[in-house]
Amino acid sequence: MKLTKLLPAAAALTALPAMGFAQEAGVDAASDTIFIFNSLLFLIGGFLVFWMAAGFAMLEAGLVRTKNVAMQLTKNVALFSLAAIFYYLIGYNLMYPLGTWSVDGVLSGVWGVGVLEAVGVARDGADDYGYAATASDFFFQLMFCATTASIVSGTLAERIKLWPFLAFTVVLTAVIYPLQASWKWGGGFLDAAGFLDFAGSTVVHSVGGWAALAGLLVLGPRIGKYKDGRVNPIPGSNLTLATLGTFILWLGWFGFNGASQLAMGTVGDVADVSRIFANTNTAAAGGAIAAMIMTQLLYKKVDLTMVLNGALAGLVSITAEPLTPTLGAATIIGAIGGILVVITVPLLDKLKLDDVVGAIPVHLVCGIWGTIAVVFTNGDASLGTQLYSIVVVGIFTFVVSLVVWFILKALVGIRVSEEDEINGLDKAELGMEAYPEFSKG
Amino acid sequence: MKLTKLLPAAAALTALPAMGFAQEAGVDAASDTIFIFNSLLFLIGGFLVFWMAAGFAMLEAGLVRTKNVAMQLTKNVALFSLAAIFYYLIGYNLMYPLGTWSVDGVLSGVWGVGVLEAVGVARDGADDYGYAATASDFFFQLMFCATTASIVSGTLAERIKLWPFLAFTVVLTAVIYPLQASWKWGGGFLDAAGFLDFAGSTVVHSVGGWAALAGLLVLGPRIGKYKDGRVNPIPGSNLTLATLGTFILWLGWFGFNGASQLAMGTVGDVADVSRIFANTNTAAAGGAIAAMIMTQLLYKKVDLTMVLNGALAGLVSITAEPLTPTLGAATIIGAIGGILVVITVPLLDKLKLDDVVGAIPVHLVCGIWGTIAVVFTNGDASLGTQLYSIVVVGIFTFVVSLVVWFILKALVGIRVSEEDEINGLDKAELGMEAYPEFSKG
Amino acid sequence: MKLTKLLPAAAALTALPAMGFAQEAGVDAASDTIFIFNSLLFLIGGFLVFWMAAGFAMLEAGLVRTKNVAMQLTKNVALFSLAAIFYYLIGYNLMYPLGTWSVDGVLSGVWGVGVLEAVGVARDGADDYGYAATASDFFFQLMFCATTASIVSGTLAERIKLWPFLAFTVVLTAVIYPLQASWKWGGGFLDAAGFLDFAGSTVVHSVGGWAALAGLLVLGPRIGKYKDGRVNPIPGSNLTLATLGTFILWLGWFGFNGASQLAMGTVGDVADVSRIFANTNTAAAGGAIAAMIMTQLLYKKVDLTMVLNGALAGLVSITAEPLTPTLGAATIIGAIGGILVVITVPLLDKLKLDDVVGAIPVHLVCGIWGTIAVVFTNGDASLGTQLYSIVVVGIFTFVVSLVVWFILKALVGIRVSEEDEINGLDKAELGMEAYPEFSKG
Repeated sequence: MKLTKLLPAAAALTALPAMGFAQEAGVDAASDTIFIFNSLLFLIGGFLVFWMAAGFAMLEAGLVRTKNVAMQLTKNVALFSLAAIFYYLIGYNLMYPLGTWSVDGVLSGVWGVGVLEAVGVARDGADDYGYAATASDFFFQLMFCATTASIVSGTLAERIKLWPFLAFTVVLTAVIYPLQASWKWGGGFLDAAGFLDFAGSTVVHSVGGWAALAGLLVLGPRIGKYKDGRVNPIPGSNLTLATLGTFILWLGWFGFNGASQLAMGTVGDVADVSRIFANTNTAAAGGAIAAMIMTQLLYKKVDLTMVLNGALAGLVSITAEPLTPTLGAATIIGAIGGILVVITVPLLDKLKLDDVVGAIPVHLVCGIWGTIAVVFTNGDASLGTQLYSIVVVGIFTFVVSLVVWFILKALVGIRVSEEDEINGLDKAELGMEAYPEFSKG
Repeated sequence: MKLTKLLPAAAALTALPAMGFAQEAGVDAASDTIFIFNSLLFLIGGFLVFWMAAGFAMLEAGLVRTKNVAMQLTKNVALFSLAAIFYYLIGYNLMYPLGTWSVDGVLSGVWGVGVLEAVGVARDGADDYGYAATASDFFFQLMFCATTASIVSGTLAERIKLWPFLAFTVVLTAVIYPLQASWKWGGGFLDAAGFLDFAGSTVVHSVGGWAALAGLLVLGPRIGKYKDGRVNPIPGSNLTLATLGTFILWLGWFGFNGASQLAMGTVGDVADVSRIFANTNTAAAGGAIAAMIMTQLLYKKVDLTMVLNGALAGLVSITAEPLTPTLGAATIIGAIGGILVVITVPLLDKLKLDDVVGAIPVHLVCGIWGTIAVVFTNGDASLGTQLYSIVVVGIFTFVVSLVVWFILKALVGIRVSEEDEINGLDKAELGMEAYPEFSKG
Repeated sequence: MKLTKLLPAAAALTALPAMGFAQEAGVDAASDTIFIFNSLLFLIGGFLVFWMAAGFAMLEAGLVRTKNVAMQLTKNVALFSLAAIFYYLIGYNLMYPLGTWSVDGVLSGVWGVGVLEAVGVARDGADDYGYAATASDFFFQLMFCATTASIVSGTLAERIKLWPFLAFTVVLTAVIYPLQASWKWGGGFLDAAGFLDFAGSTVVHSVGGWAALAGLLVLGPRIGKYKDGRVNPIPGSNLTLATLGTFILWLGWFGFNGASQLAMGTVGDVADVSRIFANTNTAAAGGAIAAMIMTQLLYKKVDLTMVLNGALAGLVSITAEPLTPTLGAATIIGAIGGILVVITVPLLDKLKLDDVVGAIPVHLVCGIWGTIAVVFTNGDASLGTQLYSIVVVGIFTFVVSLVVWFILKALVGIRVSEEDEINGLDKAELGMEAYPEFSKG
């Protein structure tokens, strides 16, 4: 995603060569068209990224044990809903603090017109004529905030309490995500420094990963995962769901990366969106195939979970720069992501970091990799600035998250009792089962 | 959905300020563009609403017991298919009776050109130049008819016979839905009276709910649900499916409400579609969170099924007016929907109304609530007219449905035998199982 | 899909009536708009067809036994990924051999600019100004190639080895599919002969079917399927997944057929895309209902699997010509497809051809039927040319596939050991289970 508020005017201008007065109506029609195309891109991109919320829910429900499935589903529906509300109440105005944020603004946001333009807004009344409808932009940006929150839930599955987890989600989506996102996408200091992160390998994915890592350190591993110096694999209960989730995420990513072009009303913009679609797809393919070959070589057997995470790793890796690579370069960037995941998953286990779904390898490690990889295909990128930004965003997110997790732990506790964990969160916290009729093997 | 046939010309006009003769080609290009954008909105909206058919199928398959899953899936595929065929054969022409409906018309619809425009229609030959392609409109409208039918199947699950249910579906989609829809969207007397129902809280959702309620009264509760004065909860067999279904419906609702703007070829229209997307999303979030908090307060445990129904309740509630509310108002309208569901579900049980998936609380109760809520944010709405229309549509749908259900009961019976119900409809009526290899707990 | 490279200019021209010099900027704006609409059609169509990969995965995972589910999922993710890479490396240039294919081209494709246009390409620099962005076209075409490969995996499920299967996928997507597709869509001799296949009943679906049939003959039936002269039905393990897969495929087909119009920047084009959406939907409905009625008549019970395959059969049947039929004709074409599937499935069993998911009845038989049916509604079609093309494509694909399967069998073997087949491919080849916690009935 480029800088939201500054780009559109430029985009509109390039599409409108000097025209005489006699053609003013034509000019308006043309820039109406650009406005509509850009808004439409946000709407399509937005519903595709919305769909990723379902993808995370299915992926995570497939990778936990049956006794925790209903809880994992509950968390995913609730975190998306909270993100929608708190990003609207606080986050959006915090992220784009162009003189609009104020207590008044938030309050009027709740009960008044809020961030949306007037109904049936006229050309002259549009907030950003030449760019896009404000509500379409808001809708799209909201989905990125929610995605960040989705990343956290998988890592901490199977032992975190519901309400403290949701409390963290509120802080993450209302404050942590929007604040650091404003540094890049809100025109802040990282943007000024030349940091390049097209659709958020760092701003979204690594931030989700850092927040998850902080939570993991406070929360500790699941009972029985590391015992007597050995790592006991805990297989996911439903690999069709995990595969479905991966396909959903892959689909949603076309919106995630593609609509981060933020414009499609000119020949150049729609051609760029098209490049991004093609590159995003091939990076995922590269990640899946690389992970498949790696597991065959290392373990003599293909590991489906790794193939799925390989595809996701490819997607995260290409997210910082899905536009400038060639198809070949995109495939390789994705493939390296897939390899990184296969290498990192056992490393985490050595550190006794029990990441249930592999979100840290996929979103944090490959988020960093993808951000660095920008320098290989985009001449405007500087390795120093990329690394500096990764570190700044990482330290901020990790430290603030750690503090929030500690506060939650001190105030209400974040981990269920040992008995509840063994019996499963579904019975203990929800009093229901995801699959009540299927007997357990 | 505004009045289909009258709006577009107005929309086109506002986009075309007075232009001289010399720019006629430019004018045509601009109104071509409007035509294309509007058609595209219908196509995107249409495929999103199509996707809701899958959402209902998954939601219902997840909320019935395993022994009835294959039957519930069969009903969902079959009802959508029948809706597609009978809305085309009869319903569409009945709904828009602008001098086109006739036996001849239907016959020519089957074997002749039918409702579709000619292949490669030229600007001058288009039925509604300045609006949209006829087939795109048909495609979109059809999906609303099918949605209405989908609502019924969940309520009556686990004991209704396949073929009588499908016979009712035919009557509903060929006659009941189109007739009452014509009163509002076909420019009929409710529209003339000033009734406002943007995307169908009443016209679609409450109609599905009334038809389901009529069926429920004739059909009776499942065996064992109400026994010795107690309500025995019968948990759904697969909550991941139910959650997936809810996410699918949520996604599809962007098309349902958003494309009911019926136009996106002008700045004002696309900004409105964007508002609708944002409001639809936040209403669902409000409904989910409200239901979550309510169940925590009332039952000391969060209930996932209620959270899911809460999100759907929020969606139904915002459907009558997704445009004029602010984000805050939309959230609250949705949240009240979520609260209504949590309150209504046990009330139905007290009345021994055994609604398997909660379709009556979600679609009927919140459909009524949403229709009333229009008056809070849309100055053109009159509470009296809204209530009058709710009652007119309700009485018509309920009475006609009741008559049809009674006729079906008298002619062929609508309920399976007690033995078949206990053994499950899958074995009895289909001779197959949804999950043949999983042993039952 | 019409001939890709020749159509667009014509489409652009019809939209641009003679205009004077003074309106040149307006002309450019208009043809920019066409370029954007066409590219957008490919992007939307492309992501919908991508989604079909998930549909095939779910359908197949639902129709195999639990012991082979993880393997079937692995194959589906891997085959899509390989298709993405090899169609890019070799296939695309082979399919559109308009002077661009060369060793150099492929190599530069990998490491250089490849098939994509420059970033932010200007109007004058676009490969096909007046048509669409090259990357959008590539993205869309790629998905068709991947679909062809998806068809094969279902037929051969539950006994084929992973790596030989993937090796075949590489040959299919790099060479077999692109080569024969170039004969029609690359402007080759079948196109010159007047062969009509709008979106690929023959070019995609029958090709997948022929390749699957060849593999089936070399591979043989599953152990226990045909025993003592009897056919033992082996029911699918999860019919909700199979139903979900069918709905996904149905949804994706709107992109598959609709975007094969290849243009939507004019009134005529968008009206045609709309016709195609409506016809595609009704054909699926016709197929589902026909199969439902047929199974009721033949077996006295509705068969859900047949209903699902009936819907898919309707979709395949309308794919060769989704534009010219009326809604009535489309319904009937689809219904005949549904009937053909119900008739063909037991016929295959009589021939001891063990097609696990019914891909040959659906994609090969109905692919042929659909290709023939073009003559009923499109006056430009010649029965002789249609049959000739079916035979040419069929012989080529079948013979080459057979040779490749035999080579793979001779070199590495394509079938797992008897023990592995009985234990299931998941444990034997992957060392993991799809549903490890569910005990088997």
